[in-house]
Amino acid sequence: MKALCLLSGGIDSSTALFWAKKKFGHVMALSFDYGQRHSIELKCAGKIAGIAGTEHRILKLNFSMIKSSLTSRKISVPVNRPLDFRGGSLEIPSTWVPQRNTIFLAYAFAIAELENCNAVVAGMNVVDYSGYPDCRPEFLKAFERAGNLASKRFVKEKKRIKIFAPFVKLKKSEIIKVGLALGTPYKYTWSCYSGKIPACGRCDSCKFRLSAFREMGVKDPLTYRK
Amino acid sequence: MKALCLLSGGIDSSTALFWAKKKFGHVMALSFDYGQRHSIELKCAGKIAGIAGTEHRILKLNFSMIKSSLTSRKISVPVNRPLDFRGGSLEIPSTWVPQRNTIFLAYAFAIAELENCNAVVAGMNVVDYSGYPDCRPEFLKAFERAGNLASKRFVKEKKRIKIFAPFVKLKKSEIIKVGLALGTPYKYTWSCYSGKIPACGRCDSCKFRLSAFREMGVKDPLTYRK
Repeated sequence: MKALCLLSGGIDSSTALFWAKKKFGHVMALSFDYGQRHSIELKCAGKIAGIAGTEHRILKLNFSMIKSSLTSRKISVPVNRPLDFRGGSLEIPSTWVPQRNTIFLAYAFAIAELENCNAVVAGMNVVDYSGYPDCRPEFLKAFERAGNLASKRFVKEKKRIKIFAPFVKLKKSEIIKVGLALGTPYKYTWSCYSGKIPACGRCDSCKFRLSAFREMGVKDPLTYRK
Repeated sequence: MKALCLLSGGIDSSTALFWAKKKFGHVMALSFDYGQRHSIELKCAGKIAGIAGTEHRILKLNFSMIKSSLTSRKISVPVNRPLDFRGGSLEIPSTWVPQRNTIFLAYAFAIAELENCNAVVAGMNVVDYSGYPDCRPEFLKAFERAGNLASKRFVKEKKRIKIFAPFVKLKKSEIIKVGLALGTPYKYTWSCYSGKIPACGRCDSCKFRLSAFREMGVKDPLTYRK
């Protein structure tokens, strides 16, 4: 089996890449440059793919019409929000990018078909996350169906592309546990939405990450703003 | 109801725009510049949206990793293929762009949500077409489900975006009949894959179009190569 792994450069997708390397013989990594304010994650993704020894592609996408605080400097990223660490966010914040994963998966299915991949691996999870609707298992299942119905290989040869989201129901601390066992180099991962070095430690993404390392009793190798 | 109409500038989508104008109070048109060799269709789309009196946006998309004879000059567009005028093409040709409609619809759902549209209108049809899997009703239905599951408005308010593909089971001649009654200005539409003026008359798209006008007993207002 050959797999295409979505790689943002964060904790979940980096762990997913190392998971995919172990599960599948052949893996390629795909990252998207969609104007995210934390584009530093793309450099991290490159470093991580290099360590994993996988081919890595970065595709530039146009999100100019899709408003979000993650893609626009005009809207600020919320910090110190109250978070529910066992069921995601209490409300969907401004960092949500409408249909981001739908667009990512649509491109991934196109490239997977052209590269003869039969698996698309993604690191989404719905436990300690920001409540983005396009991370949920029911969305992934529905997209898998749509993407295959749109595929020539499925229509002609009944060969299906399967979405693997191995961590979708794990807590982030459990993902880190898996990742540490697989040798995921967390010191090169990036989570902070601010995109500034050092990481802010106050946005949703930093808070979920810090909480997970704390729960594991492991020091987060990243440096945070004092 | 407010609708977002996908507009390529061809027969089907131009008719869909005029259909949407009649059905919905408020319509905006969306075209994609995805490196298609017949990018002349975008100028036609602009002209048609102008005549329809709808807002028109063109979004540039990166299809550099998605190979097709429609987006690459290195692969030639097939001409004079045997076509089945009652069930589409006999095989999926090189003009097929993998997941094109999945990517288009994913962007459309993002923009529809941000613009408070509750309908996405598309001109696909599966009768006299080139056998592209992402034009079929079962794909559209599956995508509608996935796109809504990924939507904040659906999750929070149960407000669904509905895909309207009013011509999906009509023959192209029947679409033209509807369009003529609605005043669709076919002289400004573009179909030819070659993208050169005058239209080639030999690619799938020209052949389906010419056949439909012939069947209607109406002269195609477009000029073709001798």
